[in-house]
Amino acid sequence: MQCDTVWTNCRLLARAGQPLIDKGMIAAKNGRVVYAGPATDFDAPTIDLGRRLVTPGLIDCHTHLVFAGNRAHEFKLRLDGATYEEIARAGGGILSTVTATRAASEDELITAALPRLDALIASGVSTIEIKSGYGLTLEDELKMLRAAKALERRRPVRVMTTLLGAHALPPEYKDRPDAYIDAVCHEMIPAVVGLASAVDVFCEGIGFSPAQTERVFQAAQAHGLRVKLHAEQLSNLHGAALAARYGALSADHLEHLDADGIEAMRDAGTVATLLPGAFYFMRETYLPPIEGLRAENVPMAIATDCNPGTSPLTSILMAMNMAATCFRLTIDECLAGVTTNAAQALGLSHEIGTLEAGKSCDLAIWDCAEPADLVYFIGASPLHSRVFQGQTI
Amino acid sequence: MQCDTVWTNCRLLARAGQPLIDKGMIAAKNGRVVYAGPATDFDAPTIDLGRRLVTPGLIDCHTHLVFAGNRAHEFKLRLDGATYEEIARAGGGILSTVTATRAASEDELITAALPRLDALIASGVSTIEIKSGYGLTLEDELKMLRAAKALERRRPVRVMTTLLGAHALPPEYKDRPDAYIDAVCHEMIPAVVGLASAVDVFCEGIGFSPAQTERVFQAAQAHGLRVKLHAEQLSNLHGAALAARYGALSADHLEHLDADGIEAMRDAGTVATLLPGAFYFMRETYLPPIEGLRAENVPMAIATDCNPGTSPLTSILMAMNMAATCFRLTIDECLAGVTTNAAQALGLSHEIGTLEAGKSCDLAIWDCAEPADLVYFIGASPLHSRVFQGQTI
Ligand SMILES: [Zn+2]
Ligand SMILES: [Zn+2]
Repeated sequence: MQCDTVWTNCRLLARAGQPLIDKGMIAAKNGRVVYAGPATDFDAPTIDLGRRLVTPGLIDCHTHLVFAGNRAHEFKLRLDGATYEEIARAGGGILSTVTATRAASEDELITAALPRLDALIASGVSTIEIKSGYGLTLEDELKMLRAAKALERRRPVRVMTTLLGAHALPPEYKDRPDAYIDAVCHEMIPAVVGLASAVDVFCEGIGFSPAQTERVFQAAQAHGLRVKLHAEQLSNLHGAALAARYGALSADHLEHLDADGIEAMRDAGTVATLLPGAFYFMRETYLPPIEGLRAENVPMAIATDCNPGTSPLTSILMAMNMAATCFRLTIDECLAGVTTNAAQALGLSHEIGTLEAGKSCDLAIWDCAEPADLVYFIGASPLHSRVFQGQTI
Repeated sequence: MQCDTVWTNCRLLARAGQPLIDKGMIAAKNGRVVYAGPATDFDAPTIDLGRRLVTPGLIDCHTHLVFAGNRAHEFKLRLDGATYEEIARAGGGILSTVTATRAASEDELITAALPRLDALIASGVSTIEIKSGYGLTLEDELKMLRAAKALERRRPVRVMTTLLGAHALPPEYKDRPDAYIDAVCHEMIPAVVGLASAVDVFCEGIGFSPAQTERVFQAAQAHGLRVKLHAEQLSNLHGAALAARYGALSADHLEHLDADGIEAMRDAGTVATLLPGAFYFMRETYLPPIEGLRAENVPMAIATDCNPGTSPLTSILMAMNMAATCFRLTIDECLAGVTTNAAQALGLSHEIGTLEAGKSCDLAIWDCAEPADLVYFIGASPLHSRVFQGQTI
């Protein structure tokens, strides 16, 4: 078989959950895997990986990476004992990020996001989903999505964009949430076709209702966009089941998910995206129903939820450690959560998440021996190098 | 005033808790600070820091950085549902680290520790304490301490070594803990004078009793060595009060510390070293008495406790985030915990921990604006560069 490059002498985890191949080899042509398995013969330029561990490039399938400002000062006030009300009066909360993001240019948003993206890449990420949701006007949501997409030209990384117009109620629509949902459905969704690949809603008592969520889903569907949902984070509004009815790619957070929601997700093939960074940072104690998801074979993904308010986390390895430590996911579940299942949560199972013929040749090459090492260590990244679309970087 | 180098145009936090100096300057001569404060005039080679934040080089005052092997596999077994007994039968637990460490040469221990040290340095650390305690024979404890000290010649970092011979009961002394304490007192302590600067004990139901601890303290004192203690981590044996009676530099962990212990520490000037990495990783829920320590003005330090069993953590920034998130320390307390108070926990208040004339010129230079940013972000390090003993590195 012809190929451009062969990587040899590695310990290969071609698919999370499968046995490690001790003497592994990957071959690529035109940026695509043509072979990944035990060492065999290829006549092509060869790169010796010195027995390093190789996994698929990791996937962070839920982030709010593009934003201006940060909320460190709000964190400081909270630790000093300020109440949420005092913080809101001091200009804190999500609307402070909205104000800063609206005031920023597209270039400024890119510049602000790059160090966060670099940190994620340093933790082995090759694909990242980025949501809008701090603009909350047509113009500012488009600016956020363009900034997110532009990151793909600045770094060797794949960016999937999601419209999260229904993230919070902008001050201009105070007491008129349905009017804002009209704007999301009739102005934003039509405008993001071709720019965003999915539409998301924050379905919560402090966000939008299931009825409002459903209107957004209908508009998304009418424009050929897949949906996903921030569901059951703080309470159970049965958002996951609603999302499943609309064939959602994923329902995310899910601390308060019930058995009906689990069944609905199972039947719809909706991925459960767990966000342990927010659980940790907000000191939540109510755990997502891991046993139930496991019992029904609902695929579980893990993401950073990187955002300035509830999860200022920029390491997918740390997200895995938190999923293991806080949620008791197994090592195999953690690895599947940032590869196979994260790919499914982005509708990219055909393209990424495992190393097999035909998929993008995205490799994470690690200075460690065992997949468990990637989950166990805290606060460092053993990344040696990456290969993105067949190119060593 | 004469000096070798001047660093200008920085936002300077010369001492944790003091106001940030917006237009700061540091001047050094022969590796020592001669000035740190608002910009003034010096005739010396000048380095422009581009408005970056500068803090004292950070201090990790409690680690078990030198060890062989790792316990990722044990972590995997635990997540798969294995009991502690099953793990012990599978060769896990601290004795697996002892076996691996005994089998390793001094050079192998150095090689194994370097990536962990590099990760800590990348999080801004300039001074690190390293304990023995996985050798548990005279020869192997000396080997560990020599390996720890040798790291100082491999990287620009200050290493303080602590004998923790009384870490666990070695299998050779099964059912004879007092005979092992004899060996610690009569063989190890005399032999480490000049190599270790302090002596530590694991005082706990699963470690050594207060009476055994006291014998070790007496031997240490007789040989002119300062003491510190692993105290009140899993239960209250009144170890902190015992340590205070021996003028301990610090008592560490302290989840189960009571009011008497707090008073004793206050009166003795013993630092409370908090280890939130172990609290997080072991999913503890019993919080150390932060309010009581605060009320009595007991200095609180924060350290990684980097070790393979209960805290595989190699970022002092993440330790600060955990101290804030899990223990509700304020930003100022977190920063003091890895500078001023950590220096005191090592008996090095005259040398490091703040930037003032006469101290070592150890700087951490950060790509961020506010001290709070160092605590708030999770999973990345904004370190730009360090200065160690006056040299940019
Ligand atoms: Zn989110
Ligand atoms: Zn310790």
